[in-house]
Amino acid sequence: MTERLSALTKRLEEIDDIQRAAAVLGWDQMTYMPRGGNAGRGEQLATLASLAHERLVSPAFGAALAAFAEEAQGAPADDIRHALLRTVQRAYDQATKLPQELVARQMRLTVEAYESWVAARAAKDFAVFAPAFAKMVEISREIGEALGYPDEPYDALLDLSEPGMTAKAGAELLGELKAHLVPLVQEIAARKDRVDRSFLYGHFADESQWQLGLEAIEAFGFDFGRGRQDRSIHPFTTSFGVGDVRITTRISEESFASAFFSTLHEGGHGLYEQGLPAEWARTPLGQAISSGVHESQSRLWENLVGRSRAFWRYFLPRAKAVFPAQFGENGVEEIYRAVNYVEPSLIRVDADEVTYNLHIAVRFELERALMQGELKAKDVPEAWRAKMQQYLGVTPPDDLEGALQDIHWTGGLGGFIGYTVGNVVSAQLWEAAGRTIPDLTERITQGDFAPLLGFLRRELHQLGSQEKTEGFLRKATGEGLTTRPYLGYITGKYREIYGL
Amino acid sequence: MTERLSALTKRLEEIDDIQRAAAVLGWDQMTYMPRGGNAGRGEQLATLASLAHERLVSPAFGAALAAFAEEAQGAPADDIRHALLRTVQRAYDQATKLPQELVARQMRLTVEAYESWVAARAAKDFAVFAPAFAKMVEISREIGEALGYPDEPYDALLDLSEPGMTAKAGAELLGELKAHLVPLVQEIAARKDRVDRSFLYGHFADESQWQLGLEAIEAFGFDFGRGRQDRSIHPFTTSFGVGDVRITTRISEESFASAFFSTLHEGGHGLYEQGLPAEWARTPLGQAISSGVHESQSRLWENLVGRSRAFWRYFLPRAKAVFPAQFGENGVEEIYRAVNYVEPSLIRVDADEVTYNLHIAVRFELERALMQGELKAKDVPEAWRAKMQQYLGVTPPDDLEGALQDIHWTGGLGGFIGYTVGNVVSAQLWEAAGRTIPDLTERITQGDFAPLLGFLRRELHQLGSQEKTEGFLRKATGEGLTTRPYLGYITGKYREIYGL
Repeated sequence: MTERLSALTKRLEEIDDIQRAAAVLGWDQMTYMPRGGNAGRGEQLATLASLAHERLVSPAFGAALAAFAEEAQGAPADDIRHALLRTVQRAYDQATKLPQELVARQMRLTVEAYESWVAARAAKDFAVFAPAFAKMVEISREIGEALGYPDEPYDALLDLSEPGMTAKAGAELLGELKAHLVPLVQEIAARKDRVDRSFLYGHFADESQWQLGLEAIEAFGFDFGRGRQDRSIHPFTTSFGVGDVRITTRISEESFASAFFSTLHEGGHGLYEQGLPAEWARTPLGQAISSGVHESQSRLWENLVGRSRAFWRYFLPRAKAVFPAQFGENGVEEIYRAVNYVEPSLIRVDADEVTYNLHIAVRFELERALMQGELKAKDVPEAWRAKMQQYLGVTPPDDLEGALQDIHWTGGLGGFIGYTVGNVVSAQLWEAAGRTIPDLTERITQGDFAPLLGFLRRELHQLGSQEKTEGFLRKATGEGLTTRPYLGYITGKYREIYGL
Repeated sequence: MTERLSALTKRLEEIDDIQRAAAVLGWDQMTYMPRGGNAGRGEQLATLASLAHERLVSPAFGAALAAFAEEAQGAPADDIRHALLRTVQRAYDQATKLPQELVARQMRLTVEAYESWVAARAAKDFAVFAPAFAKMVEISREIGEALGYPDEPYDALLDLSEPGMTAKAGAELLGELKAHLVPLVQEIAARKDRVDRSFLYGHFADESQWQLGLEAIEAFGFDFGRGRQDRSIHPFTTSFGVGDVRITTRISEESFASAFFSTLHEGGHGLYEQGLPAEWARTPLGQAISSGVHESQSRLWENLVGRSRAFWRYFLPRAKAVFPAQFGENGVEEIYRAVNYVEPSLIRVDADEVTYNLHIAVRFELERALMQGELKAKDVPEAWRAKMQQYLGVTPPDDLEGALQDIHWTGGLGGFIGYTVGNVVSAQLWEAAGRTIPDLTERITQGDFAPLLGFLRRELHQLGSQEKTEGFLRKATGEGLTTRPYLGYITGKYREIYGL
């Protein structure tokens, strides 16, 4: 390690330590913190955020970065220092472009927006939330202007979580999916009675659900010596380093699928975090490529693996051992169909594989119109209803099941596209894994997930951020981002299940 | 609030936020962290400690403190700013005397020592821990030299947790106790058969013990909206602010008393933290006076309350409701005697009231000899055995029950004297509370702990660090630190129980 590299990484590690400490506080806030801790925790998190920001934008950091940049630019083309420079420069540019005043103002608005969202939910009326949301759109435009963009301010917000993503590219991606999925949803809706999932509802003891979920992700390869699962209202994954990755879930005893697939989903995120390169830990190079690529890992384990026949050939005997009364009479085919039940519904987080991206299309198109000033915050519910009807054929009876359904908009705009990128990439990786591991299905049937995890470790996890999304995809699958494998997977799978 | 005060408190609050964040990370490390998190957590804690230190010793802080000092010195004699200045000046002086490099090194050594302590316990061999412990003694001497001391380096370590305490004063305090307690222990040992505590052993279901402990401290006044209990190997209390106080315990199903009194003990610490003045939160003035005064609160609730006849008149019906088979045949007198069983034993945290301070004398005298270079780390087990035999008449069969028995030495030296200060102060406060609340015993019999908690809130908790130990004791009890009430309490209580 050169002197300049070492000087830079020392600074990066300190910033990373502060951010990971904040992650521990955030995890505790969502899992164990008593309500009395709220005010203090807010102060502590604000202080840590401002310390990390202050250190990143400091002249000393700028000088260390400039010195390292000079060195890296002279390095051979395949030298890892190029990738490190790119990832650090990106973080530095973002931080220096955003005035601290704007960051603080957005943080305060987040609190105000959250309170008004809670009030609006109590009143079942988006109009209560609209003024704060209008401010959120306004500040999002300011952020876009501060960061800069190729065509429209929304590009800048998308780029924050999906480096390189633009509004135009996102609209094209969603357009391709809509063209195939909207008619497919309609065809399936006419055949609803082909699948029975009633046995997934009833009574499933909390502790048994907990154990079964853990058993599944332990089989996938989640290392409980370097991670754990706790409970929270909304499931999430957070990482304090490759040696300490936390996932959470919530359990409803009335329904089997909700907690089980949530554990597989967060377990997939967790496997990515546990597989990141330890040698670049505590630097941006040791982190995931993007939110969308992260989501590809959760969706791959949740859906491509967890909702496959092969997985249930392996896992159904285990599920039956824990829930003999509930699953006793069903075979692999019954559970395979049940966990792949499709229904146009109102709530995104409960949506199945076929309808999920249509929920994303609704959000994405509304956000883009808001950012362009073509839609006013107060008119969101009407626009929401129209798009839901158009894409999914359903209309929310009130805003609770409509535009107030989740918390995302209290924190800002631009994050939804990652869910769709994740779905699309998960299918690309699955197809490539199938080519690389000819007996993949047979291995999964035997409960041997090591070849699949090995493929993901090698082609993605161990890279950290050495490659961008396109570059990693080309190396791992031979193609850049494409909807072909995803649409092939969805169409093939669901036409068969629903006899279309 | 004046401009200078506000400028200083803003800086103090930022430092406090960093220290509380470190406390959250420390709590997580001891409760939930998977073993893979060790290395990363050590780095994060070192970074936070160094950030807090850096900010405290910065020229900007020094200037803010100097400006405020000028203002405070001109204030009326009873102005709170004098106390704030004293507590901040103390923290500032300690920090400026300790080089940052030394602080960070000690923090890293703590992690290393903890791991080696765990390994030594697995091997049942102090020799595995001795190299790390030798480093800990060495670094403690460095710290002593950096801080300065009146007579010997150990003074400096004692002063860190007990402001004003010296090795000489500690030896005198323990000397007074030893003079009375060593013979009393011998007298009691000859009458062991006067008390039967066999019914405290058997099978006590984990979850029931957990609930019963919580019920007791809830009755004491512990606010679960501003705190919680979790599990850890070694029980402790930590606070992230007056709104978020965490205690821990560990449960053995074979024994009732261990977890129950541990919960009362940590609950007492927790009540102090929850009662600290919110208006000085996030400054040193809003913190406890000393470790010893802190311990007075845990010991008061654990022993003076929890091992009294009055408490068990109130609580035995509750304990019988949860454990009818185990307690069903016993009356208040039987349980009172059983929970006050005296036996010279090997483990400090399990020690009874009579023998407890003799364990402290062993540690204190070994630490003092180590610091003076009169004892080597590797020779600790032998010296330990000799002193245990001399004071308590027992010898540990191995290091697990000897010098490896608790975690304290992984964090440094000098903290044990606080336990004895705590015992002594608890009896002083109990005596004063009895004078102030004439029907104290009757109130406790009725499960009404509000008058006692009110006394402690008023005379101690709400002061924060406005007074030093001596000053607070004089106001609350009419005397400075004295062993008279403690020795009176112990002698009276145990001569009666054992018919001496």
